Amino acid sequence: MRSVLVIGTGLMGTSAALALRARGVSVHLRDTDSAAVRTAEALGAGTVEEPSEVADLAIVAVPPPLVGRVLADAQAEGVARHFTDVASVKGEPQHDAIALGCDTSHYIGGHPMAGAARSGPLTARADLFEGRVWALTPTADTDTETLNTALELVALCGAVPVVMQAAAHDQAVALVSHAPHVVASLVAMRLQGAGERAVSLAGPGLRDLTRIAEADPRLWLDILSANAGAVADLLEEVGADLERMVAGLRSIATTDDAKRRSGAETVESMLRAGQQGRRRISGKHGVQPEQFETVTVVVGDQPGELARLFRDADRAGVNIEDLRIEHAAGMPSGLLHISVATGTAATLGEALRAQGWRQR
Amino acid sequence: MRSVLVIGTGLMGTSAALALRARGVSVHLRDTDSAAVRTAEALGAGTVEEPSEVADLAIVAVPPPLVGRVLADAQAEGVARHFTDVASVKGEPQHDAIALGCDTSHYIGGHPMAGAARSGPLTARADLFEGRVWALTPTADTDTETLNTALELVALCGAVPVVMQAAAHDQAVALVSHAPHVVASLVAMRLQGAGERAVSLAGPGLRDLTRIAEADPRLWLDILSANAGAVADLLEEVGADLERMVAGLRSIATTDDAKRRSGAETVESMLRAGQQGRRRISGKHGVQPEQFETVTVVVGDQPGELARLFRDADRAGVNIEDLRIEHAAGMPSGLLHISVATGTAATLGEALRAQGWRQR
Repeated sequence: MRSVLVIGTGLMGTSAALALRARGVSVHLRDTDSAAVRTAEALGAGTVEEPSEVADLAIVAVPPPLVGRVLADAQAEGVARHFTDVASVKGEPQHDAIALGCDTSHYIGGHPMAGAARSGPLTARADLFEGRVWALTPTADTDTETLNTALELVALCGAVPVVMQAAAHDQAVALVSHAPHVVASLVAMRLQGAGERAVSLAGPGLRDLTRIAEADPRLWLDILSANAGAVADLLEEVGADLERMVAGLRSIATTDDAKRRSGAETVESMLRAGQQGRRRISGKHGVQPEQFETVTVVVGDQPGELARLFRDADRAGVNIEDLRIEHAAGMPSGLLHISVATGTAATLGEALRAQGWRQR
Repeated sequence: MRSVLVIGTGLMGTSAALALRARGVSVHLRDTDSAAVRTAEALGAGTVEEPSEVADLAIVAVPPPLVGRVLADAQAEGVARHFTDVASVKGEPQHDAIALGCDTSHYIGGHPMAGAARSGPLTARADLFEGRVWALTPTADTDTETLNTALELVALCGAVPVVMQAAAHDQAVALVSHAPHVVASLVAMRLQGAGERAVSLAGPGLRDLTRIAEADPRLWLDILSANAGAVADLLEEVGADLERMVAGLRSIATTDDAKRRSGAETVESMLRAGQQGRRRISGKHGVQPEQFETVTVVVGDQPGELARLFRDADRAGVNIEDLRIEHAAGMPSGLLHISVATGTAATLGEALRAQGWRQR
């Protein structure tokens, strides 16, 4: 791949441009917002000059509702041999492309699973997509050369390609991202009117669960709107499960023993199904969480505590796979949960104990 | 407080006993399971010998359905001046105590917000309750001396007391712990039948949200059963919100502009309410998350990387308030999100850059 035209120099487009430039690809930039495109150029993302020849690839990096129109215009102009986009939903853009008579054989949808809290070219980074999954959604007649060009783009950005149908993609992100986001918001909503005392009982589980509810509501309205049908379908399934769970709990709350037993069976089997489902989400590098052991250490609040701890852990020769800090209410210290490979927790625990670290 | 009788030497009872022993309190242990009580004694939690005089406090550390009965018997026997329990729900035990004609003026309910993945005396620790909130639920006529004795117990265990009514406690834990647990399980359940490709798109948000769904279903059935009514009430409210959300999304998916607008308003206002609710859960030491800034650093997978990073951060003189590791798919590295006090991120960022750390 020698030359790429990036249409739309926001966070995604500019980040892809920066990654391509870093790998020596010639990049041309376009945006209807001349300030944005000049900023991207100033950042070294490419040139605002029009390409003198047909580019190998055009990346349409505009909001989902505009992808079809911009793609149709770019193809009519003949700016590139192959075309892709980076919108967070894939069904709508593909549908629009077909409706507008685009050449779908030289187009493949794309969605790099990365982002940032803020938008615009100034938040762009050459390594935004590094190590992230990048979904590619071919049309019914996408050319193999177009697929290969998109795969090259993904590789140049350091991402991991996953090829799937547009509809499957939209259902997948509804499942793993959009519907969970809504549910986290619904749980967090209930805290609004809660008393101070009640809120004081909240622990790390609730904080982890509701973290994503912190995100910008305006941005998420756009994301959910572009995938509204799939998200609503999934939430209805969650709602049906919720009703079964409520019925189970109501049965448990009665005095009828047979009812109580059947309610308990319902609730337990659903909790068990949740545990099974959770196991589908691998930890690091596709490793299941059960393959880790945890060492929990009490750390103080002074600067240097963590440095000292990690130096001591390092000397034990044990590789830290994951870690999580948990703060205790009203205490100037916290708990550090250190995940290590199975069979190495004892080694690390002993080494830390020898250095005077308190463990839980 | 000079002497305490612990009735029930499981995780909670034995941990309290160990904490009290460490502070010089004389502790007597009882359990219907003679192996458990001997294990607790061997761990240094106290003596299995019967107390020769009336104890200052009896801690009833048995499962919620047994608290009333055990309390009634202990009071009839006159084993202590004051009585408390450590069950995870408070309404049912208090109700049972009244129904069994207990002396409620010398009883106060208690619930230390701490636990462990496994039960039994062998998992007990003297510092289990350190820094944790310990809810105390007086009856209608709990004596001030009984309250003060319980407050002394909480202080000796290093916990933070919060006094509240039993019903308010049960509603609070339904809100901040039990209902969220169910919701996390419901979201995780949906992953059970999902395709490999779909699951591969899952990111850190979903992992954080569903973490608590990993817990033991059997244990959680017991917890939910003892608070079934309050949890069902709350889940019904979540269900009603879910229906409003689905209706909003369905409106957005129509072609009617007025409907789309009203649907968008519903969805956005609910996301906003979730954001507000989330803000009620303070970060560390009651500090709101907005008072932190984040520095994100790329860390490699070799032993020593974290030690080196924290040493460099330490030299910058910036105190790390919180941290979170995020692993990137298929990459031998991860992102470390470091939270620091507002105004210090730039200092830390520069110091780390100077040492060659890549930042996002």
